[in-house]
Amino acid sequence: MRAVIPFKKGNAKSRLGTLLSEKEREELAMAMLNDVAKALLGSGCFRVIDLLTTSIIEVKGLNTVLTEKGLNEALNEYLEKMSSHSMDEPVLIIMADIPLVSVKNIREIAASSAGVVIVPGRMGGTNALFIRNPSNFHVDYYGASFLKHKEIAARSGFKIEVFDSFNLSTDIDEVADLTEILLHGKGYAARYLKKLGFIVVEAENGGRVGLKKV
Amino acid sequence: MRAVIPFKKGNAKSRLGTLLSEKEREELAMAMLNDVAKALLGSGCFRVIDLLTTSIIEVKGLNTVLTEKGLNEALNEYLEKMSSHSMDEPVLIIMADIPLVSVKNIREIAASSAGVVIVPGRMGGTNALFIRNPSNFHVDYYGASFLKHKEIAARSGFKIEVFDSFNLSTDIDEVADLTEILLHGKGYAARYLKKLGFIVVEAENGGRVGLKKV
Repeated sequence: MRAVIPFKKGNAKSRLGTLLSEKEREELAMAMLNDVAKALLGSGCFRVIDLLTTSIIEVKGLNTVLTEKGLNEALNEYLEKMSSHSMDEPVLIIMADIPLVSVKNIREIAASSAGVVIVPGRMGGTNALFIRNPSNFHVDYYGASFLKHKEIAARSGFKIEVFDSFNLSTDIDEVADLTEILLHGKGYAARYLKKLGFIVVEAENGGRVGLKKV
Repeated sequence: MRAVIPFKKGNAKSRLGTLLSEKEREELAMAMLNDVAKALLGSGCFRVIDLLTTSIIEVKGLNTVLTEKGLNEALNEYLEKMSSHSMDEPVLIIMADIPLVSVKNIREIAASSAGVVIVPGRMGGTNALFIRNPSNFHVDYYGASFLKHKEIAARSGFKIEVFDSFNLSTDIDEVADLTEILLHGKGYAARYLKKLGFIVVEAENGGRVGLKKV
């Protein structure tokens, strides 16, 4: 069984630009990647964990695979290469921006008996995708990728499991999402935001929570 | 074991007012309540399911308990009454606006060995709360209630489990949340929105998804 994490360092997480500098966004992206890598490594489920990246990055325990392609093209090329090299083993594709992921989450996904496990992100995204027979599958990210991956799996006749996890649904794109890291995170990303001085605050009327820098 | 669903019908879900009429918002609130009731009833875990409500409402299988109080006061009075009547049995407090909840979710919560199970909503909320010994517990909703409930449970010496579920984290407050019902719902609320003509749409650039009425 192998795992692959697609990662893009340059101009990472631009929607956080109102709150964080470019350097801070890159450091946060690396902290989140390390949280995901730690959960994968800690699970003990994978023979190989590939980091599919557009720039040279070293993460301990991960095998760096350079690509110049976009997300869909890079991942589909990766899946095709696996097939053509007769390495048609199960693969977990997992996003680098879901820092709440736990070892337990990963072990539960890997233990599924389904042909394809789809882990939804909020608003139609796909935050992880476990594919037992990659040779018959391709990915289609962006937009309502959750629906697209369900359709691709159904067309190939795979038994589908939708994996229900708040941790895994929480991808970090916008400023509000950082609050979730502070509320629930215990890893690198949470420590990094705390180091920058961010804390959770409540609105004075007891309403919505948010974060501020102290 | 019992369950209690707090519910407020009047001026329900005002933040959906840009998209839905008052009547539609009330009907959606009732549809979501029925989804939650169905999951609770289907689980077979509960001796009694109380509907703690500010107006007279009938839901099949639920026991209507009228109150004029606000959320915290009504629930804390409910917990106190349980204790004083020597009905100190485990209780699940569950919100009425989480229509993605499944029978499996409910059974897993009820099977927990923890003294308190806290089910986070997004942005610091608490969407369900399972309390094994209610006499030593009180609730404190609004704001970062997730952190407050963790603290209340810790002070009482209860073993805490944080229950990880996208279904249960998805409370419906804002227009964007309706998209989650269309993407993932299979029950009354999803059917109601489809009956009104809502469908999921993708932004033309393949970006964020949303919904529109056709």
